[in-house]
Amino acid sequence: MSVTDAEVIQVKAVVYEKPYSVAVRDVDDPRIEHPNDVIVRVTSSAICGSDLHMYEGRTAAEPGIVFGHENLGVVEETGSGVVSLSKGDRVVMPFNVACGFCKNCLAGDTGFCLTVNPGFAGGAYGYVAMGPYKGGQADRLRVPFADFNCLKLPQSDLETDFILLADIFPTGYHGCELAQVSPGESVAVYGAGPVGLMAAYSALLRGAATVFVVDRVSERLEKAREIGAVPIDFSKGDPVPQIMDRTGGEGTDKGVDAVGYQAQAHDASHEEPASVLNSLVDTVRPTGRLGVPGLYVPSDPGGPDEHAKHGQLLVSIGRMFEKGQRMGTGQCNVKRYNRQLRDLIIAGRARPSFVVSHELPLDQAPQAYEKFDKRVEGYTKVVLHPALAA
Amino acid sequence: MSVTDAEVIQVKAVVYEKPYSVAVRDVDDPRIEHPNDVIVRVTSSAICGSDLHMYEGRTAAEPGIVFGHENLGVVEETGSGVVSLSKGDRVVMPFNVACGFCKNCLAGDTGFCLTVNPGFAGGAYGYVAMGPYKGGQADRLRVPFADFNCLKLPQSDLETDFILLADIFPTGYHGCELAQVSPGESVAVYGAGPVGLMAAYSALLRGAATVFVVDRVSERLEKAREIGAVPIDFSKGDPVPQIMDRTGGEGTDKGVDAVGYQAQAHDASHEEPASVLNSLVDTVRPTGRLGVPGLYVPSDPGGPDEHAKHGQLLVSIGRMFEKGQRMGTGQCNVKRYNRQLRDLIIAGRARPSFVVSHELPLDQAPQAYEKFDKRVEGYTKVVLHPALAA
Amino acid sequence: MSVTDAEVIQVKAVVYEKPYSVAVRDVDDPRIEHPNDVIVRVTSSAICGSDLHMYEGRTAAEPGIVFGHENLGVVEETGSGVVSLSKGDRVVMPFNVACGFCKNCLAGDTGFCLTVNPGFAGGAYGYVAMGPYKGGQADRLRVPFADFNCLKLPQSDLETDFILLADIFPTGYHGCELAQVSPGESVAVYGAGPVGLMAAYSALLRGAATVFVVDRVSERLEKAREIGAVPIDFSKGDPVPQIMDRTGGEGTDKGVDAVGYQAQAHDASHEEPASVLNSLVDTVRPTGRLGVPGLYVPSDPGGPDEHAKHGQLLVSIGRMFEKGQRMGTGQCNVKRYNRQLRDLIIAGRARPSFVVSHELPLDQAPQAYEKFDKRVEGYTKVVLHPALAA
Amino acid sequence: MSVTDAEVIQVKAVVYEKPYSVAVRDVDDPRIEHPNDVIVRVTSSAICGSDLHMYEGRTAAEPGIVFGHENLGVVEETGSGVVSLSKGDRVVMPFNVACGFCKNCLAGDTGFCLTVNPGFAGGAYGYVAMGPYKGGQADRLRVPFADFNCLKLPQSDLETDFILLADIFPTGYHGCELAQVSPGESVAVYGAGPVGLMAAYSALLRGAATVFVVDRVSERLEKAREIGAVPIDFSKGDPVPQIMDRTGGEGTDKGVDAVGYQAQAHDASHEEPASVLNSLVDTVRPTGRLGVPGLYVPSDPGGPDEHAKHGQLLVSIGRMFEKGQRMGTGQCNVKRYNRQLRDLIIAGRARPSFVVSHELPLDQAPQAYEKFDKRVEGYTKVVLHPALAA
Repeated sequence: MSVTDAEVIQVKAVVYEKPYSVAVRDVDDPRIEHPNDVIVRVTSSAICGSDLHMYEGRTAAEPGIVFGHENLGVVEETGSGVVSLSKGDRVVMPFNVACGFCKNCLAGDTGFCLTVNPGFAGGAYGYVAMGPYKGGQADRLRVPFADFNCLKLPQSDLETDFILLADIFPTGYHGCELAQVSPGESVAVYGAGPVGLMAAYSALLRGAATVFVVDRVSERLEKAREIGAVPIDFSKGDPVPQIMDRTGGEGTDKGVDAVGYQAQAHDASHEEPASVLNSLVDTVRPTGRLGVPGLYVPSDPGGPDEHAKHGQLLVSIGRMFEKGQRMGTGQCNVKRYNRQLRDLIIAGRARPSFVVSHELPLDQAPQAYEKFDKRVEGYTKVVLHPALAA
Repeated sequence: MSVTDAEVIQVKAVVYEKPYSVAVRDVDDPRIEHPNDVIVRVTSSAICGSDLHMYEGRTAAEPGIVFGHENLGVVEETGSGVVSLSKGDRVVMPFNVACGFCKNCLAGDTGFCLTVNPGFAGGAYGYVAMGPYKGGQADRLRVPFADFNCLKLPQSDLETDFILLADIFPTGYHGCELAQVSPGESVAVYGAGPVGLMAAYSALLRGAATVFVVDRVSERLEKAREIGAVPIDFSKGDPVPQIMDRTGGEGTDKGVDAVGYQAQAHDASHEEPASVLNSLVDTVRPTGRLGVPGLYVPSDPGGPDEHAKHGQLLVSIGRMFEKGQRMGTGQCNVKRYNRQLRDLIIAGRARPSFVVSHELPLDQAPQAYEKFDKRVEGYTKVVLHPALAA
Repeated sequence: MSVTDAEVIQVKAVVYEKPYSVAVRDVDDPRIEHPNDVIVRVTSSAICGSDLHMYEGRTAAEPGIVFGHENLGVVEETGSGVVSLSKGDRVVMPFNVACGFCKNCLAGDTGFCLTVNPGFAGGAYGYVAMGPYKGGQADRLRVPFADFNCLKLPQSDLETDFILLADIFPTGYHGCELAQVSPGESVAVYGAGPVGLMAAYSALLRGAATVFVVDRVSERLEKAREIGAVPIDFSKGDPVPQIMDRTGGEGTDKGVDAVGYQAQAHDASHEEPASVLNSLVDTVRPTGRLGVPGLYVPSDPGGPDEHAKHGQLLVSIGRMFEKGQRMGTGQCNVKRYNRQLRDLIIAGRARPSFVVSHELPLDQAPQAYEKFDKRVEGYTKVVLHPALAA
Repeated sequence: MSVTDAEVIQVKAVVYEKPYSVAVRDVDDPRIEHPNDVIVRVTSSAICGSDLHMYEGRTAAEPGIVFGHENLGVVEETGSGVVSLSKGDRVVMPFNVACGFCKNCLAGDTGFCLTVNPGFAGGAYGYVAMGPYKGGQADRLRVPFADFNCLKLPQSDLETDFILLADIFPTGYHGCELAQVSPGESVAVYGAGPVGLMAAYSALLRGAATVFVVDRVSERLEKAREIGAVPIDFSKGDPVPQIMDRTGGEGTDKGVDAVGYQAQAHDASHEEPASVLNSLVDTVRPTGRLGVPGLYVPSDPGGPDEHAKHGQLLVSIGRMFEKGQRMGTGQCNVKRYNRQLRDLIIAGRARPSFVVSHELPLDQAPQAYEKFDKRVEGYTKVVLHPALAA
């Protein structure tokens, strides 16, 4: 017997209230809306750096949106069209919502699905302008096109590794794929936040010989060193000559921009949106390739000048051309990589959870957002556990 | 018996004198300088649009430089280390001079050879800052690393097709390769000059379904139409909506920028260096790829503003990222394609000579440069024939 | 109101009766069985050479099976889970039935779907051992996972071209893809049946310089010549030296085996199952690649010896290794290519219908099978039109 | 002043005398024969399993041939055409001799050079039928096309790692490249000899999740385990079901045949030339790829039957086709990989020397060959050091 409209059940969820404020509130329980949906009881949902764009009020997000695009849990209910999933299956979902049959999904570009968010290429859970999909920082989550969007997981104690399959591990890997990082190569990764560390980690998994990681925060650089990368502290000087010195003046074979448009000037005094991209052009040798998973946006009302507000930045295109470089951009097509990365975790050859700093019950979300936003007390990557909130 | 220093022989050559002036003068006859050299008697040497940068005085080219990087002729003399060439062999040379054994040449990136022009990645004949190699708009030409740099040709009456293997046919093809143009795709090519037409022609050879060619010159657009492309006249309005209309609002799968930094604003009133690149970003659909064989330079003293003078342009990087586009840039590695394109000519499946407007003896070079520079009298592509100059 | 079980409606269909006998009979009307199904009114369904394996009784096909895996028609009914299709949409279906979300489908290997035919990798309509899917040589056809398996078509008079998108055009193209046929290359295609001709046609669409087509039937060789290939008549002698002579003793860059295990000895006196494959090894030059869309089977009760009966053939693996060749095999993943090939048809750049010899109403299927099986009266490729049968 | 013919200098070298007999003898000192030659003083030259084919008299090798195709040393003399090497440079040479400019070398297929061994695609040092190049198990070695064939090495104590760049490390890696082993995949490697171990090691470097290594020798299997692979002992039963059990019945994504035509039946009672290849077909899942660096030969006078003597083996082509597998074969193009693998060694991320069992002075070559041939006393991989022989 199905639940009638009169009997609306409520679940807990992290709801955006206003800039710098989220609350854990009761919201309508998600339910099967289409035969290909499943409902997942969420056991892990991570907070992402991109959630902070909304949290800080730098987007058009309206109050009431439920956050959470990095989700893992257990299937509780399946629509009548679902064929590969059963109640009780443990699954992790890409942050992208995708249909699996449009032109872009067929090409593996699931981050640019043409079906799920009409008028735009790409959809996601719990994100402004990414379609009508509620986020998973909640007890339960509706997953559309579930056969396509769910990746099954074995029973194990690796949930903190598996939750990273929803976004940042594939996103870091995507940076390497865009740059076509290959065995024996040297790679420069700008940014040692969670995505940058995952990019460096992925480069090493792919067989890179030497990986430089550029940042100014010593704990982050220390993590880079621990996984086998060479930390480059740009608070101690321009990273380009630092890397040139370590590559015999040649530069690296490949580069990854894991910072994006909120890049800061070398002296950290102000935002300089293209500074990382242009440093990357200078760092990578002729014929090299640049992977840009770091976010650039076509509209940034807070941008430092009129052009930046419209996503036009002063790019060293002349130098890039002279060097014959190639550049790949865009958000990650998680589905393209998550199975293989899962199998590396299962085989014990990848343990990406080293980036997770905190695991908290759902009801501590408000404080977690606040501290993560301020980068205090080592808050680098937070995983919320709705199931523990009860 | 070899020629002694006292017996210097002179040959005719096109020599740069000063802005807007070249002369046909006697210069020292090239001779074998290294065991791997050959001397080629030049029978065809084309004038390239990039020669005009020097001709117009917008480069650091000094008077005395011999022009000509698109060269074809007959081997007259071989160094003691040459093993695959004999006197009498008919050959065409890539405009790039390359060694064949450095890291970049091994990767097929012969346009970025690390050996032939120390301190820079890439060398060429007869071009400022591209190494000590004299041009081939002359009776004879020294070709270094000849086993690597010469492509043999059959005896035939196809010399006007074969001479285009030195640069513009491969360069147009390279644009398609950078954009990974594949069978069944739609492609937008900006620019219907010789390189743009070669890009469109290459896209069709590679099996593209629909190729749009954007320009404002009606004769060029007519040539585009003749080879099977769809002409888009941007003097009649913004090309982006014109192409959107013809693709059901989707945009093209791929795009090629065959214009470069000397792009003009839509109303042709002034240079707007990034306007083609940014139109291309708007024209190509999400997940598409951009091939940029059109030249962008890191230093342009004549640029419209301070940033442009240093090769930094306002690029729509936000939109590019949102669309997840990839972009490949840089001058063509001719060696990567010239054999296959030659074989298409031999098999009768490619006749690129449709772009050649004039074939002239060497001594008419001064007038040819002047008219080509002014684009008068249909001067779109000129091939000089030194052997006819006598 | 839906049809009740009591009101079973009957449709006409081509039903296998016994070796060398099919009949047009009434069968149960297909109906929506799953939310992702659609029902298509079939307007074209082609007879495939592989249907003859069943027709001749050389398979385990039981009487009663409805034939037809090359299907095109109009959507008449949609399941509740279908989102991209509507009643009235004109669609063509790959012969492979695929789910779109299993590991193989995600990799584009839709011919090896792990979902639709449990215990085996791959499913198809109307074919023994390929799953419970009825064929489309019938008035109506059930299409599972319809959003994934239907390719939309425009209204046009190109139905005879579009129907070939179901199998043989993509299959020929797949041969070229397996061999990685690239612009400027030479290719040898063994077999000038429908698939061989489609392979040669595809090679030319992909920009091959020279395509040799080997067969012994003069009309087929004439068709090869008409599309621009070089016919090689093996009734006039061993094709290997014939092609060697025409390639300066080098052999071709690539090769396609469009014959398979029912290959005949050069003198056509008996089957020699590996003879085409081994000729291909001899024809293709060192480092070349072989595409094998021609069928080889793991069990062939009619094979000429004990090993052949179990699909083990004497392959020139020593020569293949010495030449460093690579070989790709397997049935076509139609979904990987059908959209792009459709777009070539729409753009007027491909007209594969030149291989179709007959278009007939459904009720002439029995005679058509008989004549096609005997290859009489020019029966090379027959398209049935159920809609005309009424 | 150059050495005159009258003053022939002698060097020590390992010379083939007759089946099962080599001697260290004086031979003519190699000298510069062409401007692009260098002479290398050999400091390491390894014995390869393929040397045993000649040693055992199973080839057409004539007495007098100097063995040694895995060579490393110091440049002592350079021809007048050499530009990138100087006296004193430490270099390792691919076992392939290649020109760098023929069609195959340009494509990276340096193992199939069309120049260095006229009438055949590919040349090597010290090997029957591979051209006139003496081996390097000698004090000095002539290296032709030296700019192309020498890879420079840093001064270091890693010579035992670097010597493996001449053949077996790249050859193992080549097996993975032919199979396109990618991050997260499962791989089966048949054979745990030096090449098989290098293939498994390479698969792990490339990010494979799980690597199975099949052999019957416990020490070899132990080495496989030590590097992180899963050993499969086929003396304990058919390896196919063993691997099926460990992959949930699915089989592996990829497979490498590092055994070749001298494969033995499962019970080791006799040679069964195609048994490994056919096991690989059974082991790898549908759509998988097979890399075959293990040797298959077109002529094997010692083969078990008439077909095998001519390199034709009973291959499970029917099963391979049903599974849609792809197979790459052929000897390694060392030049394609040696630079990147060198850089992994320099960076400390690869230490392939774990396969080396013995390092000996040159004059112990006769005993080393004997013991290696008999596989006694742990002789799995021997490196000779001519410089220590004095």
